[in-house]
Amino acid sequence: MTAIPTISVDAMGGDLGPQAVVEGIGHALKRWPDRKVKYLLHGDEALLKPLLDKNPKVAAVCELRHTDTLVQMTDKPSEAVRRARGSSMWNAIQSVKAGEAGAIVSSGNTGALMAISKVILRMKKGVHRPAISANWPTPKGHTVVLDVGANVQCGATQLVEFAILGEAYHRAVFGGEAPTVGLLNVGQEELKGNDIVREADQLIRSSGLDIAYQGFIEGNDISGGSIDVVVTDGFTGNIALKTAEGTARLVAGWVREALTSSLLSKIAAGLLSLGALDRLRQRMDPRYINGGVLLGLKGIVVKSHGGADGEGFASALGLAYVMARSDFMSEIRKNLDKFAQSEEQGVAAAS
Amino acid sequence: MTAIPTISVDAMGGDLGPQAVVEGIGHALKRWPDRKVKYLLHGDEALLKPLLDKNPKVAAVCELRHTDTLVQMTDKPSEAVRRARGSSMWNAIQSVKAGEAGAIVSSGNTGALMAISKVILRMKKGVHRPAISANWPTPKGHTVVLDVGANVQCGATQLVEFAILGEAYHRAVFGGEAPTVGLLNVGQEELKGNDIVREADQLIRSSGLDIAYQGFIEGNDISGGSIDVVVTDGFTGNIALKTAEGTARLVAGWVREALTSSLLSKIAAGLLSLGALDRLRQRMDPRYINGGVLLGLKGIVVKSHGGADGEGFASALGLAYVMARSDFMSEIRKNLDKFAQSEEQGVAAAS
Repeated sequence: MTAIPTISVDAMGGDLGPQAVVEGIGHALKRWPDRKVKYLLHGDEALLKPLLDKNPKVAAVCELRHTDTLVQMTDKPSEAVRRARGSSMWNAIQSVKAGEAGAIVSSGNTGALMAISKVILRMKKGVHRPAISANWPTPKGHTVVLDVGANVQCGATQLVEFAILGEAYHRAVFGGEAPTVGLLNVGQEELKGNDIVREADQLIRSSGLDIAYQGFIEGNDISGGSIDVVVTDGFTGNIALKTAEGTARLVAGWVREALTSSLLSKIAAGLLSLGALDRLRQRMDPRYINGGVLLGLKGIVVKSHGGADGEGFASALGLAYVMARSDFMSEIRKNLDKFAQSEEQGVAAAS
Repeated sequence: MTAIPTISVDAMGGDLGPQAVVEGIGHALKRWPDRKVKYLLHGDEALLKPLLDKNPKVAAVCELRHTDTLVQMTDKPSEAVRRARGSSMWNAIQSVKAGEAGAIVSSGNTGALMAISKVILRMKKGVHRPAISANWPTPKGHTVVLDVGANVQCGATQLVEFAILGEAYHRAVFGGEAPTVGLLNVGQEELKGNDIVREADQLIRSSGLDIAYQGFIEGNDISGGSIDVVVTDGFTGNIALKTAEGTARLVAGWVREALTSSLLSKIAAGLLSLGALDRLRQRMDPRYINGGVLLGLKGIVVKSHGGADGEGFASALGLAYVMARSDFMSEIRKNLDKFAQSEEQGVAAAS
């Protein structure tokens, strides 16, 4: 990484493409005026140049890297890997591999981003596949949930890896000394979870990891603020994340209706919107928590939501900045090594 | 069933016990003044009699059936089955078996309720294990989600059974002609779900069921109102349900904060609470959607939330009433037979 933190950007990804990317950098400049960041924009010069010309402040912190090929949102990961060489996504990840940038951000095709990142950056030793993290608001701050979609079928060992990655990730992004880690499960006593979560629970307990592990937690704990890191497989995590999004949208609709259902409520809402309601609106705006990190790779890869606009993309850029400047990579090493050692001893003991 | 619909009640279950039960019947009388219902109250006369004496309106519709044993919330299902004979829960279920009541309601231990119901009532032919339903509010009405916790590990065949049960349940409780049914899954293209949901999807499509099946849906569809019945295993369903509860609570907290953060917002809230806010409060009150049905048994068993108060228990009683008077039992028969036939043909074709 160069002296000024550099973030590599796939400027062609997402539903809104270059427009959202350039606007996003503009928003990031405003949101964090004290951060000095340089951006490498990978994409089509013919589209990006005019946007930068209209945004001189953004242009001043960007270096354009032209390519006229891109990964489509509809490409299957396996196809993408074969055909993506030279695309904006490929080149953006390559900038991290080459040491030119400390992180890469893309709103593009998640499966392709994961597959190409694995090919170019490779996995950290001791991690099987990347997990995608999500930052979840709570009354006390944020809970990190992983995996939220990368690994639809997980073994117990993978869940332990997620615990290690998530714990270090929480420290890197939100600070704090020893974030608490829980394994997502159901509450019924005798039916306490499926075989895999039970095995993962035993593995975490017996591996001597340096983690504040709290055991099983339930779905309502995710938003409750009683746990910092929630570990689950990508199937359950993805469904939990989207269920929460849907619920928040439902309740927001009810609130909106309550505030506009009559003249009286409109007057009340008018009074409210002078402050408290704006804060509520911002809290419920998913754009401010946009950005999941593909954890477990030998480099920082941030996935921005495919539908992210400028505000949303700025949040992903902010997350990339924090991760790039953190000690995440070295921090996960210790626990990964401990777990590998414990696994070896387990195998030795069993044979 | 007698001429007046009769509901059998385990009056000792739940954290609040007989108090919530008797209050619940009182609330039900007020909420549905036109419904004529008789209640069989199974429980300790020494506790119930004084409560009934204080509530003559409730006493007038109740018949007390004394027993001084009960199933503890901490009993394991297997123990409960062995020791529960003669308990309030056992006797309450027995009333349905004996044809004295059209449904039974309990706030007691879920695992025990399921195990004892299976022993006394037995499963409908073609259903392996009961599934627990939950009614989920949406902008357009209600979505039924099942299983929300009874079956932590499910095969594809079970998911098909849930689709059949949930579809008939939605018609029984919410009316409507052909409720749409979706299978809960994740959105990633190439990673489209785990093996079990993919197999269940194929089974539903190939079994010729009389169901408006819509294929895969995602977590955000549960609250979205685009689907009437959401089918999933008890692990994912339980986590989705509790995640949604947690999210609703989080957002409600933010709304409350917005309405009380300053003098101005308190004035605004004062204006609002004249109507719109009360409606919002009721919509967000989980007590009004309390009650899951244990589907697939030869009898209607309604599980009220363990922490339900009188208002909550009344909702469960209301659900039991609607189910007891519905054609649910005969309605599920046709699709269960079709599925059994299709399974036999599959086995025959394979051999």
